Amino acid sequence: MTDTAPRPTLEAVAARAGVSRATVSRVVNGGDGVRQALVERVQQAVEELGYVPNQAARSLVTKRHDAVAVIVAEPESRVFADPFFARQLRGISKELTAHDNQLVLLLTEGRDDHARVGRYLAGGHVDGALVFSLHLDDPLPELIQRAGVPTVFGGRPGWSGGRDGVVYVDSDNRGGARDAVRHLLGLGRARIAHITGPLDQTSAADRLDGYRDVMVDADPRLVEEGDFTAGTGERAMHALLARCPDLDAVFAANDLTAAGALRALREHGRRVPDDVAVVGFDDMPPIAEQTEPALTTVRQDIEEMGRLMARLLLRGLAQAPSSVILPTTLVRRASA
Amino acid sequence: MTDTAPRPTLEAVAARAGVSRATVSRVVNGGDGVRQALVERVQQAVEELGYVPNQAARSLVTKRHDAVAVIVAEPESRVFADPFFARQLRGISKELTAHDNQLVLLLTEGRDDHARVGRYLAGGHVDGALVFSLHLDDPLPELIQRAGVPTVFGGRPGWSGGRDGVVYVDSDNRGGARDAVRHLLGLGRARIAHITGPLDQTSAADRLDGYRDVMVDADPRLVEEGDFTAGTGERAMHALLARCPDLDAVFAANDLTAAGALRALREHGRRVPDDVAVVGFDDMPPIAEQTEPALTTVRQDIEEMGRLMARLLLRGLAQAPSSVILPTTLVRRASA
Repeated sequence: MTDTAPRPTLEAVAARAGVSRATVSRVVNGGDGVRQALVERVQQAVEELGYVPNQAARSLVTKRHDAVAVIVAEPESRVFADPFFARQLRGISKELTAHDNQLVLLLTEGRDDHARVGRYLAGGHVDGALVFSLHLDDPLPELIQRAGVPTVFGGRPGWSGGRDGVVYVDSDNRGGARDAVRHLLGLGRARIAHITGPLDQTSAADRLDGYRDVMVDADPRLVEEGDFTAGTGERAMHALLARCPDLDAVFAANDLTAAGALRALREHGRRVPDDVAVVGFDDMPPIAEQTEPALTTVRQDIEEMGRLMARLLLRGLAQAPSSVILPTTLVRRASA
Repeated sequence: MTDTAPRPTLEAVAARAGVSRATVSRVVNGGDGVRQALVERVQQAVEELGYVPNQAARSLVTKRHDAVAVIVAEPESRVFADPFFARQLRGISKELTAHDNQLVLLLTEGRDDHARVGRYLAGGHVDGALVFSLHLDDPLPELIQRAGVPTVFGGRPGWSGGRDGVVYVDSDNRGGARDAVRHLLGLGRARIAHITGPLDQTSAADRLDGYRDVMVDADPRLVEEGDFTAGTGERAMHALLARCPDLDAVFAANDLTAAGALRALREHGRRVPDDVAVVGFDDMPPIAEQTEPALTTVRQDIEEMGRLMARLLLRGLAQAPSSVILPTTLVRRASA
């Protein structure tokens, strides 16, 4: 690629200010040892020429970019299809902007591109990284560690037990799942099914654990694996109804899954909540409010999770706790 | 921020390979003049240690980052709310990924953050930029020109007449608008209203020009300004019905605006298309297909627009045409 616009150089600034290149460089990089009168002359020349220092060179001196990478370990199409990511990014964007840091979202088509993301992180373009939606066998954590970039994870990484210096923010997935199932038991339901998320993600595994904490002797046929999408929620519900036609409640691992399950229940002529009560997870607007009937669900504060991830990173990880777990709350609507 | 992970250094690679620092540096940067046997020893040491070269330093030599910035000149919340941007990004992502270039999406909370985006672009972190949804008085083009980064614009920039080296991809907005209005005239409609987009964007201004090309003597009260959102489309439709209750057709500047207009028409008890025919612009799934009734609209190939922007940039702008205009086609459904 070729440059299309002329760009004022360091030399041009030096010539205009009547000082040496080295003096301009020192002023631009905020270095000391330059007389105030010269500083002002250089600053005026910078202003007049519209000079922008070459940050690639400058960052070798200052080691700061005022930029933070955000990586969602999902294909680009998924990032834009699932409102969960938009909410998390909203929290991150607000916090980074408040501190005049640039949000650098690194999009990919899938896991094959993660090596390239690792190269960009290692390339000295950002001061840190925020990573979410990791899957268990994802090469990203390894690549990030090699890149040596301070990182905060959204959601507990599956391997966190084995590594030092890992910082993450998560919701109380297991506790929230227990609340959901207890609520269904409290309504007198006995045959409570669970449609899980993708079990290579800790959020899904933790919610399944929460379900099992309460349903200690549950019929294993009442659990069906999903992947946090509506399409799979619908298919899983069909499978559960075929296998256990006597089920009287479903705890879905997120709201999109619950929306799919509601569709399947409607197709089978099962009334919600009369025949089958349904609880979701997330409390994701507009999904949870617009389902028919409106969805009882476990609320997690996704935007706050994003904000907190950014805040921990900006404050510096040396002082950070290794994890922050946000509480969840049950929101009761018509579906259970 | 502090580093949380150890990172193998150039020195460590040199020690392991039993060569000098300079030799490692030359091999890593693809330089010549190193014997093949040494190249192989260095490469093996790099592999074994998991060494990642510091790209900030390397890019000073190679001037390549294999990364392209994408900037949507809208607040982050809008980028995720309007499916138009997701589609354009999909085309860009596919094309960049096919060439192993990293998509670096620079998100902002609004125009106040554009100076920071300019600094990032000037900082030597990307090889080029793709910019869309510019508004007329936006400081971005000026900042991008100062940064000296090769850039392709999505949509004709309002100031393109005055500058050299501007490259853009656009749809035939004016021709598409003419087709829409002619279709309505062909259905025997005479009082055809137009809800515009934000008129500080050339796409909206061009569509208004196309409407006026056909409706040469149109009643000026039949034109109401909108901003490409459904909420404003609804409000504009209410205003038009109050002012010109005899209108029998509406050309909306995009599908979201048309969806809002349909809501307002329903509230007023006007049947579509019997009382009022409606045509949109974009053919944006799922909007255009899911409106009630399904929307007749002008299709533009948004994903292809994104792909083409990326392709022009990667090929190098020295050989690029100054603009590429993609054709539009009218898609007939129930609303007109």
